[in-house]
Amino acid sequence: MERTFAARGDIYYTSSPSCSLSIEDGWLVVVDGKVEGAFRHLPERYSNLPVKDFSGKLVIPGLSDLHVHAGQYQFRGLWMDEELIQWLNTHTFPEEAKYRDEGYADRAYDIFVDDLLHSTTTRASIFATIHPAATLMLCRKLEKAGLPCLVGKVNMDRNSPDFLCEDTKESIDSTLEYIEEVESSFRLVRPVITPRFIPSCTDELSRALSSIANERGLPVQTHLSENLSELEWVKELCPESTSYADAYRRLGLWGGTRTVMAHCVYSLGHEEDMLEDANIWIAHCPDSNTNLSSGLMCARYYLDRGCRIGLGSDVAGGTTLSMLRAITDAVKVSKMYWRHVDQSMKPICFREAFHMASVISGSFFGRVGSFEEGCDADIVVLDDSSIPTTVEGLGVEERLERYAYLRPHAPVAHKAVQGRWLF
Amino acid sequence: MERTFAARGDIYYTSSPSCSLSIEDGWLVVVDGKVEGAFRHLPERYSNLPVKDFSGKLVIPGLSDLHVHAGQYQFRGLWMDEELIQWLNTHTFPEEAKYRDEGYADRAYDIFVDDLLHSTTTRASIFATIHPAATLMLCRKLEKAGLPCLVGKVNMDRNSPDFLCEDTKESIDSTLEYIEEVESSFRLVRPVITPRFIPSCTDELSRALSSIANERGLPVQTHLSENLSELEWVKELCPESTSYADAYRRLGLWGGTRTVMAHCVYSLGHEEDMLEDANIWIAHCPDSNTNLSSGLMCARYYLDRGCRIGLGSDVAGGTTLSMLRAITDAVKVSKMYWRHVDQSMKPICFREAFHMASVISGSFFGRVGSFEEGCDADIVVLDDSSIPTTVEGLGVEERLERYAYLRPHAPVAHKAVQGRWLF
Repeated sequence: MERTFAARGDIYYTSSPSCSLSIEDGWLVVVDGKVEGAFRHLPERYSNLPVKDFSGKLVIPGLSDLHVHAGQYQFRGLWMDEELIQWLNTHTFPEEAKYRDEGYADRAYDIFVDDLLHSTTTRASIFATIHPAATLMLCRKLEKAGLPCLVGKVNMDRNSPDFLCEDTKESIDSTLEYIEEVESSFRLVRPVITPRFIPSCTDELSRALSSIANERGLPVQTHLSENLSELEWVKELCPESTSYADAYRRLGLWGGTRTVMAHCVYSLGHEEDMLEDANIWIAHCPDSNTNLSSGLMCARYYLDRGCRIGLGSDVAGGTTLSMLRAITDAVKVSKMYWRHVDQSMKPICFREAFHMASVISGSFFGRVGSFEEGCDADIVVLDDSSIPTTVEGLGVEERLERYAYLRPHAPVAHKAVQGRWLF
Repeated sequence: MERTFAARGDIYYTSSPSCSLSIEDGWLVVVDGKVEGAFRHLPERYSNLPVKDFSGKLVIPGLSDLHVHAGQYQFRGLWMDEELIQWLNTHTFPEEAKYRDEGYADRAYDIFVDDLLHSTTTRASIFATIHPAATLMLCRKLEKAGLPCLVGKVNMDRNSPDFLCEDTKESIDSTLEYIEEVESSFRLVRPVITPRFIPSCTDELSRALSSIANERGLPVQTHLSENLSELEWVKELCPESTSYADAYRRLGLWGGTRTVMAHCVYSLGHEEDMLEDANIWIAHCPDSNTNLSSGLMCARYYLDRGCRIGLGSDVAGGTTLSMLRAITDAVKVSKMYWRHVDQSMKPICFREAFHMASVISGSFFGRVGSFEEGCDADIVVLDDSSIPTTVEGLGVEERLERYAYLRPHAPVAHKAVQGRWLF
């Protein structure tokens, strides 16, 4: 009967971008860590299950963060007056270099994992740093917390400062060792191949990482078309490529295995067709794209084409791990895209953005992010009773929207992963 | 010795958009409710003053909210998938109509005032609703809380639903009664003339309100050039006017007394010169302009021209009373304006946005919003010790920037108005 229960509360989830299901005072039935279904009344056949009573609280699927830099978490909310490349060189690279020191990593990753644990996120695809020992430490903490994340040791062997640059062979060898260590040591946490981005990786390194991913069936994560100055740089580095995406393809890093491409702000018009590949997920990171002056991404285009466009916090280009904040930021960015760039691209609504953060982001990790039968029972419980108001008779979706706008950073009340309650 | 003290802490304020002053472990001296100065070491002549010890905490000037609808606070964070005119008709007007009921107003304004009290705001220019009794109740609660706000009974006598529309004469008479009641009853709270916007007010009403403002030397607040559909509507209503601003001028509502024009998103290109009038303040409301799909406002243009451009929360087009959130939203909106509309308009930085929310917004209320000698001692104390991090050696401005991004909604630790501590 472990990981088997009936949870009572105000349930919300989506089954498609256009379809949400709200059940006030409903029942979510979980058997052996998998969702059996969400019901208005508890079916007779489940009447003997242990009950978790969250009456009056919001019960939603755990959200998935498709793009976050754990090694940047300590300076979230700082130095937001700079653009990407300057920000990387001045602040990001020196901070990431500190993770050479395991004592530092230990303290820093404790803070990151504790905050992630109490957020709405149940799965995340994480960039650590180039340091294998520190990255393994992060894996250990996530495993212990019960968070089934994908964690990448970052690869960088060119155009990086001396204090944060690997030798090509060292980068490949330590990646292989890292993968074996993770695969043999952990049950929940898995490795992900993580070339930082084209400017940071030699062709030799990128091709070796492609082989490793394909041979071992490992997922890949990297950055694509985030910022105009980055695009120029990639064009200089890869003059033979027709686009930034094409440069990855030529290196074997395009959808050989399931792959997250973070940002894709400037993909529309020259590489958008490539993003329809079944193995490509787009991590839309609206907060970061605004903070680093990167630009307005057109989520509507990809969503309507059926692309796998999920959401990422992109801490520390983004300031917070909150995927609720990513949801409202995605709505806001889409409104400005509609108003200022293309009025044929209707703003995305709350329900659509929620679907992106739950079901679409979740699909990178398995059957995750919904309460349809057979999904992993990743559950988050939110207490919205602390929002004082005279407005009554709100529906479940309205209460969730309001919570997302007003309490995005609040610790969640309860969280389960695969039917196991973490708190 | 009342309202006289030396406060110790990590002090931050600005004296111009380009000049901020940070004093770590400094002293802010207040005599009889006015700032004497901020000092690195406590001058000998003040050594006998009572000490308020906020060591390790951030000590900043109280912020001023140039535009907020108290009568919309109860539905903040809801129904954010709609544009201005639809949102007004579907949600806003029916909610504002509830303030006819004084029992409802009592409960609702308790919530509003309590949240405002614990925010970083010390002054606000507030729209209530058309109802005089409820609006007086709001004034009473603000006075009791110690918040010296400007509060307007809203005027609307056309193009409004029956349940939220006044007869012209009734609107004028009740405004006069309201003003007299406020002026005779309260010490801190003051009235402000508040025609909702051109579509809601007949010419007769607008002209009468202009006379009242000019005869009594009362400030004025209204809306200007917020949303494209609103602009079209005003053009139809005022075919003889060369612009929306010109329509106000023809009605006598342009800077006869000090006046807040909220939004001004679409003023650039045809009425921007009028915004240089010494009696016009611009309330830039970035959160609302994004939520209601209004558009990206060019704060840089007005800031560099020396216009009085402050910030407003515009709850409930904006979702929160937090002026720290308004500051970071202003930075973010200016980045997207720079990237997508006009690359000659450099993004505004944190310091500039802070100056807008403190000094420029504050100047609508008097000598408020800075710690220069002679300013009213409006003080807010923020505790940033709850932000866990391994990053050390941050300056005061960096800590404040981070707090604004990460803890915008947190209740402040302490607050003083005119040297009197509210908590």
